[in-house]
Amino acid sequence: MSGTTQTKAADFRPVHFGWAVAGKVATVTLNRPERKNPLTFESYAELRDTFRALSHVADVKTVVITGAGGNFCSGGDVHEIIGPLVKMKESGDMQGLLAFTRMTGDLVKAMRHCPQPVIAAIDGICAGAGAILAMASDLRLATPRTKTAFLFTRVGLAGADMGACNILPRIIGSGRAAELLYTGRSMAAEEGERWGFFNRLVAPEQVLAEAQALAAELAAGPTFAHGITKTCLHQEWSMDLDAAIEAEAQAQAICMQTRDFARAYHAFVAKQKPVFGGN
Amino acid sequence: MSGTTQTKAADFRPVHFGWAVAGKVATVTLNRPERKNPLTFESYAELRDTFRALSHVADVKTVVITGAGGNFCSGGDVHEIIGPLVKMKESGDMQGLLAFTRMTGDLVKAMRHCPQPVIAAIDGICAGAGAILAMASDLRLATPRTKTAFLFTRVGLAGADMGACNILPRIIGSGRAAELLYTGRSMAAEEGERWGFFNRLVAPEQVLAEAQALAAELAAGPTFAHGITKTCLHQEWSMDLDAAIEAEAQAQAICMQTRDFARAYHAFVAKQKPVFGGN
Amino acid sequence: MSGTTQTKAADFRPVHFGWAVAGKVATVTLNRPERKNPLTFESYAELRDTFRALSHVADVKTVVITGAGGNFCSGGDVHEIIGPLVKMKESGDMQGLLAFTRMTGDLVKAMRHCPQPVIAAIDGICAGAGAILAMASDLRLATPRTKTAFLFTRVGLAGADMGACNILPRIIGSGRAAELLYTGRSMAAEEGERWGFFNRLVAPEQVLAEAQALAAELAAGPTFAHGITKTCLHQEWSMDLDAAIEAEAQAQAICMQTRDFARAYHAFVAKQKPVFGGN
Repeated sequence: MSGTTQTKAADFRPVHFGWAVAGKVATVTLNRPERKNPLTFESYAELRDTFRALSHVADVKTVVITGAGGNFCSGGDVHEIIGPLVKMKESGDMQGLLAFTRMTGDLVKAMRHCPQPVIAAIDGICAGAGAILAMASDLRLATPRTKTAFLFTRVGLAGADMGACNILPRIIGSGRAAELLYTGRSMAAEEGERWGFFNRLVAPEQVLAEAQALAAELAAGPTFAHGITKTCLHQEWSMDLDAAIEAEAQAQAICMQTRDFARAYHAFVAKQKPVFGGN
Repeated sequence: MSGTTQTKAADFRPVHFGWAVAGKVATVTLNRPERKNPLTFESYAELRDTFRALSHVADVKTVVITGAGGNFCSGGDVHEIIGPLVKMKESGDMQGLLAFTRMTGDLVKAMRHCPQPVIAAIDGICAGAGAILAMASDLRLATPRTKTAFLFTRVGLAGADMGACNILPRIIGSGRAAELLYTGRSMAAEEGERWGFFNRLVAPEQVLAEAQALAAELAAGPTFAHGITKTCLHQEWSMDLDAAIEAEAQAQAICMQTRDFARAYHAFVAKQKPVFGGN
Repeated sequence: MSGTTQTKAADFRPVHFGWAVAGKVATVTLNRPERKNPLTFESYAELRDTFRALSHVADVKTVVITGAGGNFCSGGDVHEIIGPLVKMKESGDMQGLLAFTRMTGDLVKAMRHCPQPVIAAIDGICAGAGAILAMASDLRLATPRTKTAFLFTRVGLAGADMGACNILPRIIGSGRAAELLYTGRSMAAEEGERWGFFNRLVAPEQVLAEAQALAAELAAGPTFAHGITKTCLHQEWSMDLDAAIEAEAQAQAICMQTRDFARAYHAFVAKQKPVFGGN
C-alpha cells in the first residue's frame, strides 16, 4: 500500500504542541495560550518533522491545525526567536540565519507535500508565522474576530517570508497581497472571507468543531484521490495550461484505477451511498 | 488570409449536439434535456473535433455554448461513460482509461486554442465535465438558479480533471478552488458571481440571448486582435512578467499592422463609428 | 551603500510631467488636464527613463503617480500617438511599430524593477495606457467616480498591451480580466474595489493626500526590506512554489542582516517605536 515503512499517527509524541487523533483526523494544537501560541525554534522543527512524517502515515487522512485559548498563533516568539536571530545578525552568523529561514520554509513545503488536506481553524490573533501557517493550509475557517497580519515589515523584514510573495497573491490577488505585505496591516475577518482567504467564518465556539467535521467528511471520501488533487494543485502551480492538462489526464487515469472509483459507480447503480476505502 | 485550407461553419453537421450559425456567431447546444445534457464518448469527441476545426474557420468569430431545457450539462453520463470506464478499470485497461482522460483534456485544449472567444450561457445544473466546459470558456453568463459542482470527488476521483487544478485557482483564487475541488460541493450562482467565476447573472429566459448579443458584439469588433488576445492570455498563463511584456510588444506590433487599427483611427478622426473587418 | 553612482531625486527635471519630492516620497503628476492627461512619445520615454533612474536614487523611497484636474490618464494621445502609428503601419514601418510597443513595455518593466513601491492615486478617467500605468503600480487608490477601461479593442488592437494579459488576471482573476480585455468596457470604481483592482476608494479631494500619506508611511518603514518584497513579488511571479520558498529563505536571511531588523527588536524590548533607517 506504500513504498515506505509506515508509521502510526497514534505513536507520535510531539512535545511542543498538542496532537490528537480521532478517527482518521489528526488535530495539531498550538498551545501556549498565555502568549497567544507563539512559535519557537523547537516547535518549528517539530511541526516540520510532523508534517514530513505524515507522508508515510496511512491512518491519518486529514489534518486540522488550530490554537488554544481563543487565538491561532502570534508568530515567532520575540524573546525566543527574534532575540537569538538578532544576536546571530550582530555576530555575523549568516549561516545560522539562513538555516533558520530554510527551516521555516521547510515547514511550509512539508505542509504542501503531505498528501493529507490541511484545514486551519483560526480564531483571534493570526500573525506573522501564524498567518503563514494559515496561508499554507489547504482550507481556512475563521471567526468574526480573527485578525490576520503578515506583519514582517513591522519587525524590519521583507514580506518575502516562507513563500508569502508567491502564495498569497494566488489566494487573494496581487493587489491585495501587495498591500498586506508592504504595510503589515491587519486583515479583518470579513475582508478575509470577501477576498477568498477564508473559506467561511463561523462562531468562535464552533470553529474547531466545524473544521474537524469538514476534515472527517474529507477523510470519509476517496482519500487517495484527495492526495492526487493536492499533488496536482502543487505541481501545476506554475505550469503551462497545456502541460497541466496532460498532467491531469495521467493523474485522473491513475485515480480511475482505484477501487474507490468502482465503489462509487456500483453504489450509484445500486442507489446506495458509496463507502470509500481510500484505495 | 490563412495558412490552411478553410472550412465553412455552415458545412458542419455535428450529430451529438446542436449547431447553429447566425451572422458570425456559432451556437453549440448540448441537447439531451431529459438527462440534463450529459456528455458521452461520442459527444466529447465531436466537441473536440469541432473546436479544433474552428481554428480553420473564417466565417465564425465567436462561439456560444449552452444547454437545452433549463440546464447546462450534468457531466459525463453515468451509464454511457462511467460504467464503461469502470469496466476498463476492472479489466486493467490502463491505455483505454488514459485515452479517455486525454480526449477530455484535448477538448479543453481545443477550446483554449481556437481563436474565437467562447462564451458559456449557463442555466440550472452545471456539473462535473459540464463545470469544466464552463471553466474552459472565456466568458461565463449564468442565472440565479445555476448550480456548479466540480463533483469528481463524489465519484471517487481527483479534482484534477481536464486542467481544473491549474485553471480554477486562476479564476477564483487558490483557497476557493481547493474547497470546490476537495469537497465537490455546489457553488451557488451568487457565489460564482462574487468570486469571479461568472461575469454576470441574468434571468433564465435571457441568458442565451445575452450571451449571443455579447458574442455578436465581439464578432463585430477587431476579431483578428481578439484572436491575439486569446493567444496571449493562453501563452502568458505561466510566463515571467518581463517575458510577457516582450511577448505583448511583439503581439501588439502585429495588430498595429492590421487594417482594423487604421480603420479605427480614421473613423475616430472622421467622428464616425469604426466598421471593423477582422483583418 | 550602492553598487552604482547615485543620483539625487531633486536633480530630476522632467518636462513632460510634474515631479515633486517631499521627504522621501516622489510624486509624478501627469499634467495635461485639458486633454485628461494623455501620454505622448515624449512622456512615455521620460517616464521610462525616470523609473529606470529611480533604481539608483537613494533619497526617494516610495513613488506616487497621479493625474491633474480630476482625471488620471486618458492613454495614448490619438493625434500625437495613434496618428503617427497608423502612418507607420501605412508605410510598412514594422520596426517603428515594434520600437514603440517595446518602449511602452519598458515603462512597465521599469515600474516593476525599481525598488520603490509605486502607489497610484486615481480619479476620473483611467483608460488605455492609463489603465496600464494603474495596473503596473504596486498599490492603487481610486475615487467613486473613477472609470477604468482597457479599451485597446476599441482602437482595433488586442488586449495584449504592455503585459495586460499576464498581469491583469493575477490582480482580478482570469474571468474578469478576459471580459475587460475582450470588450474594452469600463470597470466601475465599485467593481474595481470589489474585484481587488483598487485597494480602497476615497473621496476625490482626498485621494492624492491619502496616497501620499501611505507612501510616507512606507517610506518611514524598513525600505531596504520593502525593496526585497518588491523584488520577490516580481521574481516569484511564475515560480514553482518550492523554488519560491527557497528564494524567500535567502531573501529574508539577507534582510535579517540589516540594521533595521536589529532596530525593530531593540525598540520592542525598550517598549519604543522603532526608527528605521532603510539599511
